[in-house]
Amino acid sequence: MSEALIQIGVVGCADIARKVSRAINLSPNATICAVASRSYDKASTFAAANGYPLTAKIYGNYEALLEDPDVDAVYMPLPTSLHLRWAVLAAQNKKHLLLEKPVALNVAEFDEIMLACESNGVQFMDNTMWVHNPRTAAMAQVFNDKHRFGQLKSNDIRVKPDLDAHGSLGDAGWYCIRAILLAFNYELPKTVIASRQPVLNKDGVILDCGASLYWEDGRVATFHCSFLANLTMDITAIGTKGTLHVHDFIIPYEEKEASFYVGTESSFDDLVTCWAKQPVKCTIKTDLPQEALLVTEFARLVGEIKFRKSKPEKKWAIISRKTQLVLDAVKASIHRGFQPVEIEE
Amino acid sequence: MSEALIQIGVVGCADIARKVSRAINLSPNATICAVASRSYDKASTFAAANGYPLTAKIYGNYEALLEDPDVDAVYMPLPTSLHLRWAVLAAQNKKHLLLEKPVALNVAEFDEIMLACESNGVQFMDNTMWVHNPRTAAMAQVFNDKHRFGQLKSNDIRVKPDLDAHGSLGDAGWYCIRAILLAFNYELPKTVIASRQPVLNKDGVILDCGASLYWEDGRVATFHCSFLANLTMDITAIGTKGTLHVHDFIIPYEEKEASFYVGTESSFDDLVTCWAKQPVKCTIKTDLPQEALLVTEFARLVGEIKFRKSKPEKKWAIISRKTQLVLDAVKASIHRGFQPVEIEE
Repeated sequence: MSEALIQIGVVGCADIARKVSRAINLSPNATICAVASRSYDKASTFAAANGYPLTAKIYGNYEALLEDPDVDAVYMPLPTSLHLRWAVLAAQNKKHLLLEKPVALNVAEFDEIMLACESNGVQFMDNTMWVHNPRTAAMAQVFNDKHRFGQLKSNDIRVKPDLDAHGSLGDAGWYCIRAILLAFNYELPKTVIASRQPVLNKDGVILDCGASLYWEDGRVATFHCSFLANLTMDITAIGTKGTLHVHDFIIPYEEKEASFYVGTESSFDDLVTCWAKQPVKCTIKTDLPQEALLVTEFARLVGEIKFRKSKPEKKWAIISRKTQLVLDAVKASIHRGFQPVEIEE
Repeated sequence: MSEALIQIGVVGCADIARKVSRAINLSPNATICAVASRSYDKASTFAAANGYPLTAKIYGNYEALLEDPDVDAVYMPLPTSLHLRWAVLAAQNKKHLLLEKPVALNVAEFDEIMLACESNGVQFMDNTMWVHNPRTAAMAQVFNDKHRFGQLKSNDIRVKPDLDAHGSLGDAGWYCIRAILLAFNYELPKTVIASRQPVLNKDGVILDCGASLYWEDGRVATFHCSFLANLTMDITAIGTKGTLHVHDFIIPYEEKEASFYVGTESSFDDLVTCWAKQPVKCTIKTDLPQEALLVTEFARLVGEIKFRKSKPEKKWAIISRKTQLVLDAVKASIHRGFQPVEIEE
């Protein structure tokens, strides 16, 4: 690196921050310069347990970190309900923002956060890690390959991630919707209909739900996400000419490589007793885990702004917002008794 | 074999009859004794092209075959709309009946066919081949394994078979529904809701559709079947403790073996950067292709009746009827504008 490392402050010591702290340490263009918790002791213990540089500053409150002029950017793993307050304050302090998903409780809050980022010229990125795995780019190539995949007809996702700090649809649903948008080249669906029989806990938090998304030209995507079943991360995407299968799309089975399967112009033998051609396994290797690739990309964009006076890259905010719009529509459909909800940008 | 081979007559020379004729030839307890088409020449050509025994009788009409006293049982690959007429006539002539799926246009017709079978003491079986692959029994063991799979929560099927003689939902949909019922231990769902945006051709034949099936205890199954996309046969079944994946459930990639994948109590490593345990591939070998295993089972049941005066085995008719009930409900939901349809036995 000819330029200095991007200095990242970690705001909050949630469990997921352990993984992301390791990712920052692994990234060639970023380093951890500070950590904040509501208690100094907790922040100090967390820093020691997670291999923080000895130079990293320890803060017993979030404000102090956000006011530290040495901090270029913050990673914020706070609960979603706290994002509006702290993300806006971070942006106002000119801190570039790597924010845990789901970004906001709804798209109105999302837009407030984004307004703060834009008016302060800071880079925004949500912490959807799997998007940065090189496998995802290879999958997107398949989706866009007219000869190998044709036009997407149907996309189906079944997910059951571990119950994380969010404890709600926002976690699993966020990934499902993002993966659907990826396959549809980020074109928003027209209509969203939630599946019946979602499971809510006594506080109204969604533990299990699903939805079908409809595009005007007849394409459809269905997802189901649950905290109540075995860990599952399946995508079956069917095009006019090809089919893509993946079983570990959010977190790959292994850190250093990730696979998917593609069948193209699949057909049977003459007597229809077996397949003439089986799907092919495609394996993509990576030196850095996907979360470190995310940090590297985030730090690269921050570096462009810091050292070359570039403008923030809006792509990530645009994709996040579309994800939030669909998430809001799923919730609205559940609350309206599974009626269709139209998406309006 | 200590007993004589079951003598099977083939009624109709549809393309699928080539595969089933080979299956009868492969079965150790059955043989082809006759074939009928609406034209003698067509039947004769078909027999010669498909390795029929030289002793096989050739008929230029269906009635003559059905009246042949040497014929124990018939395989009937006629279009669904002709099943009622010819299947009932076969039963009245005391011919055991291997009938192509979908069995009937609706459950009322189905019940007429079944009444004819029961009152004439003939064995009924529909020609759903994959059920007879030994893989299916192995999959059912997983579904019933409380330690390995837990309780089924969600079952999802994406299918795109080749356009066959039926040219409609009855083909793809029949298999999907059957596979869902298998996973749910043949317990009927309470409510069926068709997915929006089905594709019908100008004659009203369904080319692409889907549905969600709901059980009262919150379990759900979704299927999508299409003639308009790449060949796909995916099942993702998620239990409280395990997940089963299969990609070729209707016709296995290879004739002599078939696989599925099972993940049990799947979890991540401590930092949630990769999986602690990956799904295991289970491969089941078979000497005979699944369609020959179907014929063998059918001929065995016919032999029990013919040589040991057993009663017909009702299991296959019961499962077929449940499949037909759900199929009817999907069509009803489409016709009622995607409203929920309750299943009544």
